[in-house]
Amino acid sequence: MYKIVSIPGDGIGPEVVAGALEVLNAVAKKHGFEVEIEEHLFGGASYDVYGSMLTDETLEACKNCDAVLLGAVGGYKWENLPHDKKPEAALLKLRKELGLFANLRPAKVYDALVASSTLKTEVVQGTDFMVFRELTGGIYFGQPRGYDENRGWNTMVYERYEVERIARLAFEYAQKRGNAKVTSIDKANVLEVSQFWRNIVHEVHQDFPEIELVDMYVDNAAMQVVRNPKQFEVIVTGNIFGDILSDISGMITGSLGMLPSASIGSEHALYEPIHGSAPDIAGQNKANPIATIASVAMMFENSFNRPEVAGDIYAAIEGALAAGLRTGDIAAPGEAICSTTEMTAAIVARI
Amino acid sequence: MYKIVSIPGDGIGPEVVAGALEVLNAVAKKHGFEVEIEEHLFGGASYDVYGSMLTDETLEACKNCDAVLLGAVGGYKWENLPHDKKPEAALLKLRKELGLFANLRPAKVYDALVASSTLKTEVVQGTDFMVFRELTGGIYFGQPRGYDENRGWNTMVYERYEVERIARLAFEYAQKRGNAKVTSIDKANVLEVSQFWRNIVHEVHQDFPEIELVDMYVDNAAMQVVRNPKQFEVIVTGNIFGDILSDISGMITGSLGMLPSASIGSEHALYEPIHGSAPDIAGQNKANPIATIASVAMMFENSFNRPEVAGDIYAAIEGALAAGLRTGDIAAPGEAICSTTEMTAAIVARI
Ligand SMILES: [Mg+2]
Ligand SMILES: [Mg+2]
Repeated sequence: MYKIVSIPGDGIGPEVVAGALEVLNAVAKKHGFEVEIEEHLFGGASYDVYGSMLTDETLEACKNCDAVLLGAVGGYKWENLPHDKKPEAALLKLRKELGLFANLRPAKVYDALVASSTLKTEVVQGTDFMVFRELTGGIYFGQPRGYDENRGWNTMVYERYEVERIARLAFEYAQKRGNAKVTSIDKANVLEVSQFWRNIVHEVHQDFPEIELVDMYVDNAAMQVVRNPKQFEVIVTGNIFGDILSDISGMITGSLGMLPSASIGSEHALYEPIHGSAPDIAGQNKANPIATIASVAMMFENSFNRPEVAGDIYAAIEGALAAGLRTGDIAAPGEAICSTTEMTAAIVARI
Repeated sequence: MYKIVSIPGDGIGPEVVAGALEVLNAVAKKHGFEVEIEEHLFGGASYDVYGSMLTDETLEACKNCDAVLLGAVGGYKWENLPHDKKPEAALLKLRKELGLFANLRPAKVYDALVASSTLKTEVVQGTDFMVFRELTGGIYFGQPRGYDENRGWNTMVYERYEVERIARLAFEYAQKRGNAKVTSIDKANVLEVSQFWRNIVHEVHQDFPEIELVDMYVDNAAMQVVRNPKQFEVIVTGNIFGDILSDISGMITGSLGMLPSASIGSEHALYEPIHGSAPDIAGQNKANPIATIASVAMMFENSFNRPEVAGDIYAAIEGALAAGLRTGDIAAPGEAICSTTEMTAAIVARI
């Protein structure tokens, strides 16, 4: 039995999470396992009831489950709150409390949507790699930091354990993917912190001799993602480089709004679409549930080690797309548009 | 009269510089001005004669001229020298001695070569923007820096004067381009050094009220270059962000080997192609001289404030390409290949 905490959140969150849970129930039925789903408030939805974006109760629930599924948080309504009360601050706090040090984002091109990429079809079709971004260290968190009238400063720092644990996670994932090639991205020709990163990644690599490890400089990597994205299978990199590279990698798929993500720690994991809460279309049955449904697939791959379940979900998504179903965000001009519930039903029907 | 120091350097350097000087003489004749060209050794070519990659004599000459034109440096022959004796170290020293704090790289798509981009023609055709990268500060130079067994660290730091001078350079360039839009790229939502960068850029912007200034986060900017490169006119950013963005920007043009660059300080300027010395085809009359010829065009735009001369050079390059001339690096499979001297002659003929 898998115990899952569901956090619909704000905006389109409840609609896309509802769709994802339908798919979750469908794969449970097909594969004969049980799921227990516990729903909790978070973000603006929580603030409006409790005056807090993240209550102790929600946090405890997230700590006592097998995986968290999150929809989206935030919206116009809570934009003018003080910085530390904003939905984004609550999300950072939740990630920190759960110790989620790795962010995983797939760059996967759906055949049916390949034309929506700004890259040529022959360059991008078949792209399918995973970016492991270190999420709680590096220059976004390093001390000292600050600015005054005459200068500004930040510190890019990595500790041994921080590099070790994410490198290990990436190699283990690569192992599960049939010993996929791992590309570690740094700027070791200029930065000492990158030379350190590279040294540690190579140390960890000694435990995975069957896996090919390639080092690449970040400026070259950004070019290579645009030049020939199919050369990548697994990318592992630090926080700021991963921020930049995972965004380019998502962009070249042509379907940014379709991409799921996982944030993983040694004890907890949280799955969510990378898109936002889209308050302008909330409650109208217009949102695209695929990114959240794909987040459930990632959950089965990464938290439950059941790639066959994940495979069923991805195949059902591709089947629905191949059958021509398009929510407004992915419809080409003139194409018929389906609703959130129609897209969900089409995917469930293919499980 | 313009006094130009020519540094052919190593590999294909002498061939492409020879081509560029022919074009320089042709525009001088057409526009009725004189040029004095003084040739100096640098890099491996200098090492083989003097045992030093950069002699005092060459350095003095570079300090006492209106602009430096550089071909390329380095090659297999000098690869195993100690780090501080390598061609790259000499180039860093030359840039530092000349105080070249800004690196300018155009992302310009030639109509005749638009098909060689991995981006779709309709996305990339017409792209023509300039990246101003700060070259002597930021995390590549900040202290403290280092690594030991258990951690690595670098410091991203900017001083007020460093941001002011490159921002001013970018705004002045934008003014010359008919008040082009300036996009300043940072990570001010997370990094204090970026918030400082943004503050100073906005201070300098007060002297250029007629210019539109847009702030953009670096991760979004990397996506936008791939999504819609035509939205950019002038980009200004720090050292590491510029390193990454200028490389992506070059890549999307589809003709990395065709791009020139300028490195500019308050008193000196150096122009060079971004490609390397390509020792494998050196001396065979196979190299593409266009990036070096375009570097001469940049010289007229930036050092001599003669955009009409630059325009003539760019038009001649486009004319030669439109007439079907292709060196090996830009020829499509099956296309006829021309030599360095044939390409040069075709461009000179169109001045
Ligand atoms: Mg980002
Ligand atoms: Mg670079």
